[in-house]
Amino acid sequence: MTESWVDIPDGSDFPLHNLPYGVFSRPDAPVRIGPAEDRRVGVAIGSYVLDLAALADAGVGLPHGHEFAQPSLNPFLAIGRHAWSEVRDRLLELLSDRSRQDAVRPHLIPLDQVRLHLPVEVGDYVDFYSSRNHAENVGRLFRPDSPALPPNWLHLPIGYHGRAGTVVVSGTPVVRPSGQRRPPGATEPVFGPSTRLDIEAEVAFVVGVPSRLGEPVPADDFDRHVFGVVLLNDWSARDIQAWEYQPLGPFLGKSFATSISPWVVPLDALRQAWVTPPAPELPQLPYLHEEYATGLDLELEIGWNGTVVSRPPFRTMYWTAGQQLAHLTVNGATVRTGDLYASGTVSGPERDQRGSFLELSWNGSEPVTLGDGSTRTFLEDGDTVTIRAKAPGEGGIPVGFGEVTGTIMAAVR
Amino acid sequence: MTESWVDIPDGSDFPLHNLPYGVFSRPDAPVRIGPAEDRRVGVAIGSYVLDLAALADAGVGLPHGHEFAQPSLNPFLAIGRHAWSEVRDRLLELLSDRSRQDAVRPHLIPLDQVRLHLPVEVGDYVDFYSSRNHAENVGRLFRPDSPALPPNWLHLPIGYHGRAGTVVVSGTPVVRPSGQRRPPGATEPVFGPSTRLDIEAEVAFVVGVPSRLGEPVPADDFDRHVFGVVLLNDWSARDIQAWEYQPLGPFLGKSFATSISPWVVPLDALRQAWVTPPAPELPQLPYLHEEYATGLDLELEIGWNGTVVSRPPFRTMYWTAGQQLAHLTVNGATVRTGDLYASGTVSGPERDQRGSFLELSWNGSEPVTLGDGSTRTFLEDGDTVTIRAKAPGEGGIPVGFGEVTGTIMAAVR
Repeated sequence: MTESWVDIPDGSDFPLHNLPYGVFSRPDAPVRIGPAEDRRVGVAIGSYVLDLAALADAGVGLPHGHEFAQPSLNPFLAIGRHAWSEVRDRLLELLSDRSRQDAVRPHLIPLDQVRLHLPVEVGDYVDFYSSRNHAENVGRLFRPDSPALPPNWLHLPIGYHGRAGTVVVSGTPVVRPSGQRRPPGATEPVFGPSTRLDIEAEVAFVVGVPSRLGEPVPADDFDRHVFGVVLLNDWSARDIQAWEYQPLGPFLGKSFATSISPWVVPLDALRQAWVTPPAPELPQLPYLHEEYATGLDLELEIGWNGTVVSRPPFRTMYWTAGQQLAHLTVNGATVRTGDLYASGTVSGPERDQRGSFLELSWNGSEPVTLGDGSTRTFLEDGDTVTIRAKAPGEGGIPVGFGEVTGTIMAAVR
Repeated sequence: MTESWVDIPDGSDFPLHNLPYGVFSRPDAPVRIGPAEDRRVGVAIGSYVLDLAALADAGVGLPHGHEFAQPSLNPFLAIGRHAWSEVRDRLLELLSDRSRQDAVRPHLIPLDQVRLHLPVEVGDYVDFYSSRNHAENVGRLFRPDSPALPPNWLHLPIGYHGRAGTVVVSGTPVVRPSGQRRPPGATEPVFGPSTRLDIEAEVAFVVGVPSRLGEPVPADDFDRHVFGVVLLNDWSARDIQAWEYQPLGPFLGKSFATSISPWVVPLDALRQAWVTPPAPELPQLPYLHEEYATGLDLELEIGWNGTVVSRPPFRTMYWTAGQQLAHLTVNGATVRTGDLYASGTVSGPERDQRGSFLELSWNGSEPVTLGDGSTRTFLEDGDTVTIRAKAPGEGGIPVGFGEVTGTIMAAVR
């Protein structure tokens, strides 16, 4: 187990063997030309971001300086695994070899001096529905007269396309959406701000290497295409969604905002975290078979105004990221650099493992008590939700994901 | 009524007052650096494409040469209506004033010498469901035990997000998708090539000017944001779709390919085509009210291996493009330059006005006879489908849309 010469606080999300990638700028730096001009790629370590473009210029043998002097990770992600490994190996060496610290240290910037941006230019955004507990809970609440699981659920990872243009970085305020909803018992819809604003705690996968039209990606090619992992909050207006979603699926109930964490944790940092998913309850078609299972042992944590209200266990997900990739390309559809596909709400079997407030408050009938004694069912204006996660890491040191956070602003009048 | 000095064949889709925009390259031109290097913007007139970047360089007073020397229309579309009008006015003048023909003619390239590309870099792709006849037909076929129209249908333009990364230009071969389907009467799904491959004849709107997060776009701001119109074929694998689409909507049954016509007809070319849509059957919420109705009097034509099998009338659409834009942003979601939103299948009330083969063959029970005497229900390998359209134009000369065509290739084995 190598150690870093960088001073890394105990319990930091960003130990040496994480090195997640993000895009940052320095608001206090001299003004450049154009708003995106000073955005570039960095990796997080301890309480710092390492400026990779500057480091590559410093002659320490770090390749791909051109791709790091960019306002998104896409150019670096598009190169592929050989480049991802080459850069990681070099960074691990530079950050552990004490003889290199004089050359590297000038390019470490305290995290509290940078602004973090959306790390990727999102191509398509797909949202799956792969937690059995979540699907059952929602089925019971939304379709009480039908079996809890739809008939196709155990045969394929159900998914749909979300709005890529409203994927925002953690910290972006979320304006309460307005729209049509049909109040209980009414026959006509009314218009106004959503009264049932919710979250969905999810894990999302970032595609690096594109595929070719008409050529399905086998499940076991997962790590040739996918670069890394972020946390995602799929903000959901349940009243708008309930009225609109049949027959063609969620649309405005979701499309107003989807927040992601700013740090993309590379698959290479998660080698200790791979697990086999729950055993299939029904036989699965061959294209969904994985030789190397891509379940992940992440422990999520949902904070509501600072009170931890749930700890969803990602290892309970029925469908894995490799299976999702195989499914979404089996018809010949491509993936592109920057595509994002999310797990769907992560809910475990216990009440305090549910990943949405719809489930946690059981459709509003069981309010949640916060640390200040107040109670909640759905989100109020001014509420802040923060999702964090940890995974097992090298040498027993957990790998963190940073956080995805957002605060609700009053609806536009 | 001005005329052009360009020789325009009678009945051409591209009279002087159309001037649709596209992206072209010249396969026979000297090789440049990189595959996209020689793509640039042109407008179609008669049997020619006018090379706008070259024309702007020729000192004839055409602005925005930089935006025309680009591999997509996005940079030009992003500028906004003042630039769109300025360029159109200048082009109308240059192409009608005989004294300018010596300066302009060198930049007219015969259409049969160019290759046409995807005209826009697609941001988000949304597909609506706005034909009452189509929604009723599909409801009867897919949900025979429920009312034909879903309860929300007359209150809002139902829509969903499709896959932007598989929007392809007319002429791109379409590989028959494979996937899961559940045969009639079976309890388990099987895997294989779709046996019910279909089309949906649609009209799509291309966004030029982006909106801001959290700020809904009023219906009457339609022409400040939308630049123009293309034809769209939403290829659909009905068997895959039927098994997957509940509860979250169409996914792999649609995402393998969506074809669009290469020429974006600007709204300015459609001034004679605006019509009021059918009267609302139920009151509509105020945000869906249009002061200036954005229905369009387009006549579509669907050719199946050369036989015209249907002529869907776009003027029968219940929801308009302005209402669709207002709806998709009413929750604060943004539109971006290059976003594409489609009408949904255009079906009129008559059998020979239906916009999908699902409807035309009434779910396979009423085969369609083609010109060679063969019959069809769904698409066979090698079949070609071509959609064309005309709209009323200036001086009684119709404006054409070119075509969106595609040929089915055998599934990957």
